[in-house]
Amino acid sequence: MRLLLRKCERTFAPASEIGLPALARPISAASTAAAPSAGRHGAAKPDPRRRVLDAAALCFIRSGFHGTSMQEICAEAGMSPGALYRYFPSKDAIIVAIVEEERAMRASFVEMLETAPSFVEGLTRMGRAVFSGENEMVCLKLGPEIFAEAARNPALKPTFDAVEDEMNEAIRRCFIAAQARGEIDASIDPDIALLLINAIGDGLMLRSSFEPDLPLGNMMPALAGLMARMLAPTASSDATP
Amino acid sequence: MRLLLRKCERTFAPASEIGLPALARPISAASTAAAPSAGRHGAAKPDPRRRVLDAAALCFIRSGFHGTSMQEICAEAGMSPGALYRYFPSKDAIIVAIVEEERAMRASFVEMLETAPSFVEGLTRMGRAVFSGENEMVCLKLGPEIFAEAARNPALKPTFDAVEDEMNEAIRRCFIAAQARGEIDASIDPDIALLLINAIGDGLMLRSSFEPDLPLGNMMPALAGLMARMLAPTASSDATP
Repeated sequence: MRLLLRKCERTFAPASEIGLPALARPISAASTAAAPSAGRHGAAKPDPRRRVLDAAALCFIRSGFHGTSMQEICAEAGMSPGALYRYFPSKDAIIVAIVEEERAMRASFVEMLETAPSFVEGLTRMGRAVFSGENEMVCLKLGPEIFAEAARNPALKPTFDAVEDEMNEAIRRCFIAAQARGEIDASIDPDIALLLINAIGDGLMLRSSFEPDLPLGNMMPALAGLMARMLAPTASSDATP
Repeated sequence: MRLLLRKCERTFAPASEIGLPALARPISAASTAAAPSAGRHGAAKPDPRRRVLDAAALCFIRSGFHGTSMQEICAEAGMSPGALYRYFPSKDAIIVAIVEEERAMRASFVEMLETAPSFVEGLTRMGRAVFSGENEMVCLKLGPEIFAEAARNPALKPTFDAVEDEMNEAIRRCFIAAQARGEIDASIDPDIALLLINAIGDGLMLRSSFEPDLPLGNMMPALAGLMARMLAPTASSDATP
């Protein structure tokens, strides 16, 4: 699921003054792995790289990627341009870093998929993790923005594609394994199923950015029920080559 | 399907110099209806309002909504700022006009859905019309951009929501009619099914903007096959309340 990768858990200063909800700060192995210097700062004062990424995400959500200047990111991060440019030479570099960082998330998603009792249950758990809202994940809001930018900006496309390819490979592997054990109808073309599964993930992510109050996390079992109907072997499957 | 409404058939000057394919100019009832003054110009010289919308779409695709200035739209349209501002007081007004215009498209989609021999076949025909690529529909490329903007910009949201609501109502009506005639399992919650159908439409639209060469139009029957499995009454349906 392409957009599932947009999930992130990130540090934000209280932002109620700009109409965004205050965000919790989960301490995750993923963010530590993505920012090696993170171990050197206390919980109260994130490292400068982290501060830039957090400030940039806030600005991008508020004004869009192109509507945000490097000066605004500096102001939001409380950092001089000279300091900021030491970490990121451009806005492109910041977006690439955001997408790269989300790469670290994939490990936990893949694990959910691989350890679930069934393929559909794995998707359900992934969906619940992404859409439960427990972590106030800002990348749900940045999703369309990153999509629009990656579709246009050649500096982003390779990173974006690489992150997606890794996830796709994992889903495909689990799908085919589920077919082999008779859980998914063997007559279903994995490419078509993956296209549909990706579309559903991306589409729900977009929906979530438009209707943040929609309880998508709670709706996962019902959605998964439809997916299960779609993938389950049918009585006529034996007749299909 | 929210993003299906982004489909448009619009006039473009040859744009090969900026790396975009030259676009055909279909003469559709919908675009005539959306631009009443269009009847007064010859096929070779679109009316000024049309020229602005076409130029703006090209600029938005190339540089994004926020990366495009009104000056650039003037230059692309070959029009003075004074002339352009007579038609559109702001970039917001241009985007609203693009979305409003697409509203006229919905009549043909709804008709496809209502006249198809089955609900899934109706979705297939809509999908094929949107994704066949026969019309080089630029709004497939503008999709993420409009999504990102509408999620953030209160000037856009009401128009965006209204267009979506109209389409959603039509899909819901057809879905429930298909349940009544036994074509769709009566135990399926229409809200959940609509959420999934919308997500699939939106997700495919995004995919198409990333992989314009993916033959989504041709893949519609296979995708519809999965949808049909999902919605078809099952042997155990009778037991479900």
